[in-house]
Amino acid sequence: MLDHILQQVQQGQLSIEEAKQRLAAFDDLGFAKVDYHRKKRQGFPEIVFGEGKTAEQIIAIVRSLQTSTEQLLCTRMSADKAQQVQQAIPELEYNETARLLYKKADLSEQEQLKGYVAVLAAGTSDLAVAEEAAITAEVLGSNVRRFYDVGVAGIHRLLHHAEEIQQAVVSVVVAGMEGALPSVVGGLVAHPVIAVPTSIGYGANFQGLSALLTMLNSCASGISVVNIDNGFGGGYNAALIHRLANKGVSEA
Amino acid sequence: MLDHILQQVQQGQLSIEEAKQRLAAFDDLGFAKVDYHRKKRQGFPEIVFGEGKTAEQIIAIVRSLQTSTEQLLCTRMSADKAQQVQQAIPELEYNETARLLYKKADLSEQEQLKGYVAVLAAGTSDLAVAEEAAITAEVLGSNVRRFYDVGVAGIHRLLHHAEEIQQAVVSVVVAGMEGALPSVVGGLVAHPVIAVPTSIGYGANFQGLSALLTMLNSCASGISVVNIDNGFGGGYNAALIHRLANKGVSEA
Amino acid sequence: MLDHILQQVQQGQLSIEEAKQRLAAFDDLGFAKVDYHRKKRQGFPEIVFGEGKTAEQIIAIVRSLQTSTEQLLCTRMSADKAQQVQQAIPELEYNETARLLYKKADLSEQEQLKGYVAVLAAGTSDLAVAEEAAITAEVLGSNVRRFYDVGVAGIHRLLHHAEEIQQAVVSVVVAGMEGALPSVVGGLVAHPVIAVPTSIGYGANFQGLSALLTMLNSCASGISVVNIDNGFGGGYNAALIHRLANKGVSEA
Amino acid sequence: MLDHILQQVQQGQLSIEEAKQRLAAFDDLGFAKVDYHRKKRQGFPEIVFGEGKTAEQIIAIVRSLQTSTEQLLCTRMSADKAQQVQQAIPELEYNETARLLYKKADLSEQEQLKGYVAVLAAGTSDLAVAEEAAITAEVLGSNVRRFYDVGVAGIHRLLHHAEEIQQAVVSVVVAGMEGALPSVVGGLVAHPVIAVPTSIGYGANFQGLSALLTMLNSCASGISVVNIDNGFGGGYNAALIHRLANKGVSEA
Amino acid sequence: MLDHILQQVQQGQLSIEEAKQRLAAFDDLGFAKVDYHRKKRQGFPEIVFGEGKTAEQIIAIVRSLQTSTEQLLCTRMSADKAQQVQQAIPELEYNETARLLYKKADLSEQEQLKGYVAVLAAGTSDLAVAEEAAITAEVLGSNVRRFYDVGVAGIHRLLHHAEEIQQAVVSVVVAGMEGALPSVVGGLVAHPVIAVPTSIGYGANFQGLSALLTMLNSCASGISVVNIDNGFGGGYNAALIHRLANKGVSEA
Amino acid sequence: MLDHILQQVQQGQLSIEEAKQRLAAFDDLGFAKVDYHRKKRQGFPEIVFGEGKTAEQIIAIVRSLQTSTEQLLCTRMSADKAQQVQQAIPELEYNETARLLYKKADLSEQEQLKGYVAVLAAGTSDLAVAEEAAITAEVLGSNVRRFYDVGVAGIHRLLHHAEEIQQAVVSVVVAGMEGALPSVVGGLVAHPVIAVPTSIGYGANFQGLSALLTMLNSCASGISVVNIDNGFGGGYNAALIHRLANKGVSEA
Amino acid sequence: MLDHILQQVQQGQLSIEEAKQRLAAFDDLGFAKVDYHRKKRQGFPEIVFGEGKTAEQIIAIVRSLQTSTEQLLCTRMSADKAQQVQQAIPELEYNETARLLYKKADLSEQEQLKGYVAVLAAGTSDLAVAEEAAITAEVLGSNVRRFYDVGVAGIHRLLHHAEEIQQAVVSVVVAGMEGALPSVVGGLVAHPVIAVPTSIGYGANFQGLSALLTMLNSCASGISVVNIDNGFGGGYNAALIHRLANKGVSEA
Amino acid sequence: MLDHILQQVQQGQLSIEEAKQRLAAFDDLGFAKVDYHRKKRQGFPEIVFGEGKTAEQIIAIVRSLQTSTEQLLCTRMSADKAQQVQQAIPELEYNETARLLYKKADLSEQEQLKGYVAVLAAGTSDLAVAEEAAITAEVLGSNVRRFYDVGVAGIHRLLHHAEEIQQAVVSVVVAGMEGALPSVVGGLVAHPVIAVPTSIGYGANFQGLSALLTMLNSCASGISVVNIDNGFGGGYNAALIHRLANKGVSEA
Repeated sequence: MLDHILQQVQQGQLSIEEAKQRLAAFDDLGFAKVDYHRKKRQGFPEIVFGEGKTAEQIIAIVRSLQTSTEQLLCTRMSADKAQQVQQAIPELEYNETARLLYKKADLSEQEQLKGYVAVLAAGTSDLAVAEEAAITAEVLGSNVRRFYDVGVAGIHRLLHHAEEIQQAVVSVVVAGMEGALPSVVGGLVAHPVIAVPTSIGYGANFQGLSALLTMLNSCASGISVVNIDNGFGGGYNAALIHRLANKGVSEA
Repeated sequence: MLDHILQQVQQGQLSIEEAKQRLAAFDDLGFAKVDYHRKKRQGFPEIVFGEGKTAEQIIAIVRSLQTSTEQLLCTRMSADKAQQVQQAIPELEYNETARLLYKKADLSEQEQLKGYVAVLAAGTSDLAVAEEAAITAEVLGSNVRRFYDVGVAGIHRLLHHAEEIQQAVVSVVVAGMEGALPSVVGGLVAHPVIAVPTSIGYGANFQGLSALLTMLNSCASGISVVNIDNGFGGGYNAALIHRLANKGVSEA
Repeated sequence: MLDHILQQVQQGQLSIEEAKQRLAAFDDLGFAKVDYHRKKRQGFPEIVFGEGKTAEQIIAIVRSLQTSTEQLLCTRMSADKAQQVQQAIPELEYNETARLLYKKADLSEQEQLKGYVAVLAAGTSDLAVAEEAAITAEVLGSNVRRFYDVGVAGIHRLLHHAEEIQQAVVSVVVAGMEGALPSVVGGLVAHPVIAVPTSIGYGANFQGLSALLTMLNSCASGISVVNIDNGFGGGYNAALIHRLANKGVSEA
Repeated sequence: MLDHILQQVQQGQLSIEEAKQRLAAFDDLGFAKVDYHRKKRQGFPEIVFGEGKTAEQIIAIVRSLQTSTEQLLCTRMSADKAQQVQQAIPELEYNETARLLYKKADLSEQEQLKGYVAVLAAGTSDLAVAEEAAITAEVLGSNVRRFYDVGVAGIHRLLHHAEEIQQAVVSVVVAGMEGALPSVVGGLVAHPVIAVPTSIGYGANFQGLSALLTMLNSCASGISVVNIDNGFGGGYNAALIHRLANKGVSEA
Repeated sequence: MLDHILQQVQQGQLSIEEAKQRLAAFDDLGFAKVDYHRKKRQGFPEIVFGEGKTAEQIIAIVRSLQTSTEQLLCTRMSADKAQQVQQAIPELEYNETARLLYKKADLSEQEQLKGYVAVLAAGTSDLAVAEEAAITAEVLGSNVRRFYDVGVAGIHRLLHHAEEIQQAVVSVVVAGMEGALPSVVGGLVAHPVIAVPTSIGYGANFQGLSALLTMLNSCASGISVVNIDNGFGGGYNAALIHRLANKGVSEA
Repeated sequence: MLDHILQQVQQGQLSIEEAKQRLAAFDDLGFAKVDYHRKKRQGFPEIVFGEGKTAEQIIAIVRSLQTSTEQLLCTRMSADKAQQVQQAIPELEYNETARLLYKKADLSEQEQLKGYVAVLAAGTSDLAVAEEAAITAEVLGSNVRRFYDVGVAGIHRLLHHAEEIQQAVVSVVVAGMEGALPSVVGGLVAHPVIAVPTSIGYGANFQGLSALLTMLNSCASGISVVNIDNGFGGGYNAALIHRLANKGVSEA
Repeated sequence: MLDHILQQVQQGQLSIEEAKQRLAAFDDLGFAKVDYHRKKRQGFPEIVFGEGKTAEQIIAIVRSLQTSTEQLLCTRMSADKAQQVQQAIPELEYNETARLLYKKADLSEQEQLKGYVAVLAAGTSDLAVAEEAAITAEVLGSNVRRFYDVGVAGIHRLLHHAEEIQQAVVSVVVAGMEGALPSVVGGLVAHPVIAVPTSIGYGANFQGLSALLTMLNSCASGISVVNIDNGFGGGYNAALIHRLANKGVSEA
Repeated sequence: MLDHILQQVQQGQLSIEEAKQRLAAFDDLGFAKVDYHRKKRQGFPEIVFGEGKTAEQIIAIVRSLQTSTEQLLCTRMSADKAQQVQQAIPELEYNETARLLYKKADLSEQEQLKGYVAVLAAGTSDLAVAEEAAITAEVLGSNVRRFYDVGVAGIHRLLHHAEEIQQAVVSVVVAGMEGALPSVVGGLVAHPVIAVPTSIGYGANFQGLSALLTMLNSCASGISVVNIDNGFGGGYNAALIHRLANKGVSEA
């Protein structure tokens, strides 16, 4: 594109003023290219963070996004706001547990990713965050297998599913209270584990700080951590890795 | 004893002034009785906290204790200070890892406690605290079985010993870093678990705070927690429960 | 059981496929055995954590538990939810202070545990947590004696009951604000003390952190600590030790 | 003084420029008057904070103070530095435990304060801070009675001295670890209690934070708190109140 | 009293059983004597902490207290609850800002304390806590002078009142946000300063932690600190010292 | 394997006792299989955490590992200890900055991974942690490109390398002080970013807490975080993802 | 003024008593002079902190201020309270986003400040704080250019405006979540940057602590920080510097 | 410059390839221009952060800087390292208190800035940080007046200098312990105040956190804060504002 602008200047088809304006735009495109690049290569749509935005604002943003992408994902959506947006854009689905408003892409068989993302939740109260992770990964194109209520205080529940979890491409492990599940999973599997602490618990839990510290201090290798209650982050990272594993690496 | 004093007053064998003095002493004995009571019923000696005391002070205290007890336990003893004390009182043993200076009682077969205390340590770096717990329990009369390096990141190492741990009377579980081991053990056993967080770790471990919070927030039942690096506390509580289980309850 | 399966295989009564399926189940039973074991030996029922579950879910769980146990305990139950469950299962009692829904077992005289658990509360505002501890221990089969409003700022109130507390098998000591009561009790008694910090207080109490740190740092021996406001944990640990002291230890 | 300056101006004995200069000085004296006032009314000397000052600086300050006061107090003095200062000013005494360098005033019988300050310390390791408090109060003119090693884990040790403590004018209560002593003392006495947390302890003590929070949250009335390890502050406040109680209040 | 019991035993007027019962009661009285002592010597009534008590409970307690004391003070009283109590006991006054329900004693001129307590507040938003301190001191018999809105960001407002503050017997200094006022006051006056941090502020104030730390770290001597928002504690300590300064010290 | 054991039982070739023993062993192998699995599929050797182990212990462990793997990695090795180990096992290399002792595998061209891992460091003082990440990834088989001193306070230094960073398979971003670099990188690239906070900084950095919180709160998607100063964790996670991207996903 | 008083005394036009009274007043004026000085030199009006004041109080204060200043600014005003004040003083404008009630001065062209203040906000949810900063600066006489939604996760959005931001006199940079924007801006510009952390975010954001620490630890020079969510502080500081840059320095 | 490149392309004087290369360079220059710009307009040299760099590295950097600037500033320099650098570059001065190695520019009278920066320190122990601020500002061209030992506990010391402080262009206020000085200064002056908390203090000071929070929460307007012990930051910000006030604003 830069070549093209310079050629036009060279050939007198573009005035210097126009060239400067275009180069500025190019500069912008240069960085916007990143996003374009991302979508091109990975098919990841822009995500709408719903909190603190009005239904009207979200409708406008979603309509603008619809011009270039099929998949849509709005996070942290209250039921009320979601309903308002759905009235305007009825093709969107809403999941109240996960507080997500979304539209999955209609992938051809060829576009389907191989393998699956494992989403684990330690307790039933970690479900909302786990579902946010699971649906996020699904909207971004991943198949997800859910393993819920497999907390470490009843280790046999986890071990029962050990093999199926081991065969996943990547795991998202959601846990509140003492947050010990990722350590145990990290020791069982040979793939990357994204740990998501939740604010579930009471007393010295300190709104998820306990689980967060546990996960950061895990003595198992291959674990990395996202913010407290950030199910979206867990699902996004997992889908990114899942896609990467499918796409492979071309010689750089 | 109160009866006796009053009878003597009644019978004119004790002046009112003398009676008052004795009642004051009795009052004191009343509370000192607590310690006597403890030793009588449980055979637990007074413990010497070694930190911040000179070798001379410790020698004096130990000599005084030797008049009434066979078992001896000094905690937080540096090698230097221990050696000085040992020169004066050669019957004491020293364990440098646990920083304990002690003398176990010579129990007759009849006095031996049935069953054993399980002491578990997650990693090799938790050893010092685990040994402090184990030797403390031994000095207080318990048999101890050690299960070291059974951290949750390699869960099969723990499960390998599951049955032997389950058959203990009480467990002390020592863990640093993420401190998840007590939760897993708590889910496997049906006896009380004393959890001891250690300051082992780095970064967001915050000198053991991470492990402490993990253990306090454990979703397994039957777990209680002592202070960071307090191996002595873990061993003491375990020995107390072990003794209680042997001694049984007489109708109150 | 493993013997039985293998014998059937040996005798051709079981195909290899069926044996594998049973062994998997056995594997599961292997770990589930823990719970079975626990109930068998200690008569402790499964506990239902009520928070975050609907009345319907709780009714279903309780009905399932009723097939195998007489005692029932649901914690963190709001009055509303408890009432809904009681309409379906009228044999359950509800204590609003302790937020517990429960059914005590009908123990024969022989099954009655000897001795009692002492539950102490420092102030009247610690009552809810203390009652959660006391009723939990009662549902699990313990006799409980309550000593309320015995905070350290009026030490004579505590000393008045010193002897009766000393004769308990185990104490649960509940305190908010400065949380000093367990230290004083720990110095008076010769049995294990379970300390329960509460979030009662204001200002630099920081939601119970003050009382929690006090208890962890106690200079008295024989104290272990559970999470802030975790009355259930206090009662559960006490009942566990109480049962153990009654049951005794058979040679391992 | 202001009157005098204005009169001199009125009478032409002072030029306006000179008057302005004097008024500025007066202004300064006005605020310096505060210190003068203090010494006049309470006989309290300026205190020298020794940490971060060289021996030479301290010698210079002390010599300057000696022109106007007999009593002298330098806090946080290492043994080395103290020795250097003593070589120059041999009338100073040094207490290594308390790290204080001082000279008590030679009070006539009439100047002696009636009553005494009670200084309590929970454990032997709190001694350094307690001695800093006790000697500070003594240098400032108070009689001090020491009650050491009266921690709450052996409550009878404290109760043994209850009456003598109750008869003090004011108490300074020094405690580390869980810091529970001031609460118990506050409930026993009817006079003001100055609580001094120490950094003694380990693990979740967090350098005295535990004891500090305990004391701030005390449920006993009549307790106020100074900074961690601030023995000087404890002794200073106690001496201030002791002096006030002797001096009485003249109608304002 | 002890003498009397023993004499009766000696003279056969009291059986040993009865003597034992009375001695137990005496023991209790012994500690209850503290409270009696306090009231006798200082005229301080029992304080009712209103939070977490029902109107009915408070009415019962107040009525019981009225049998032995004229002064009454209930803290942390909501307007609703106060009104309910006032309907039953109309002689009580209520101050909504301070959330106090109280009755001041009707002191004869002779009983009036000389001198006054200065209560300072840094900002208008610290008023509620300052009034809690001021009225508490008044109910306990002190005259109070209020100096409000004298925060350090406009130092001349404080200096304007410097002399009147200096002439107080004791000061209570209430401040939120940065909490710097006690340091400045501590440097101006020669009497004890009770510092009360408030939770007023926003952002990095952390519910009063900022002001609390400031006050604990004050480089001025003669300052001690109570809990965040604890206006009652500030007023109580001030009144205690004020009374002490009036009462004086009799030779111990 | 299970099939085989059962067949042997069925065919009478194995006694029930022998079968039980083998099944136990199988159980163990079942979990040990995990590690075998990992090495098989990913070629990742066991890592030796050097801190708290003696040179002798490390030599023994390394020699044992050498029987089954070519690659070797010991972390947190002091120069002294490394030298001792190197004397016994001279084929090991040591990097003092990264405190790593290691041996890279000799990969055939075919085994070489395509693409590269980008390791970024914000400042020169973050180098030690960055090198730990980079060499870890290299030992695990990744090609690494280093981009050091590209902190956000001079954003053009980062942008200069934007394209080369964008073409990496995965990035490890190391930053201390304010820790803002991962957010900026996360916005520029379309691949996973592993963020590593360092403890570099002073004042309100609080030993890396500042950088850690920054990274957890990043508003860029695709970022996950490891513990403070955990360069090893950063490199391990990156190598895991890099390997996964090369290996691809076979239909599960 | 002091000269004048003294001259009058010298000339017998003022009695000593009157002179003393005036000097006291002068003293007061001396400090009040500060405020006068400020307004005179900088035209900055008194600011009304609206929180915790009633509409009536605010009306009274504003009316009093109107006698001496044209500009008016009330911060932290709820919509309700603002409306009540506007009914009484209709010339005031209200901005609900910024929660400010204000009246800008009507500046002549000559009074207009040259140059502008740049106000940047990282995300749309930081808008309220950014608007508080921007309008504050405007009321205090500055021209403001707003650059919103220029967070570092999409660095090109910021770079697009780099030149216009560089040409500002001073920048206010508002950011929540990871708070990295000031570091990047600090590296791009050569003028002072006032950083304002916001409490926007979730999880380990801890009510703005994360952003606050990031900004304090910034490795860019020329950045100083105000309290969390303190948009007013940001705008005030910026306006102060802007005014100073226009006014210049006269030889001191 | 862009114009020039495009003109050359238009006129065939530059091939497209060469133009592209130059545009890339221009892009780079574009951002490097920032630094150039800064030096040009403000004469501020690059600062060398000395910590963690060897003497050799610093010598190399300083020599490189000497080619383009006369002023030099290396911060956080130990005495040893400074001496090594001085042997190589003898024109550098070293201040051990401030740990700065520097060379001030030789400014012509015309280049001299008008007015002065006031640097205040609360206590003598804050001197090191204050000197770091003062010398930093001097190296960057400001005249500095020092006001040391003017802490708020003796407010008259500060007020004595009030007028001279008020006439400064900008103040840097350094304080540890309770950190109250900036609030008082902020209320006295009408110019910007840069507050620098120090880690001086003990106990609940928490390494400067106390002073930091105090300053962030200041109720005085016109205060902004830098990191704990960041004297350099204080001096840099002050010099930036001082320069700006001298330079003035040209119409943007």
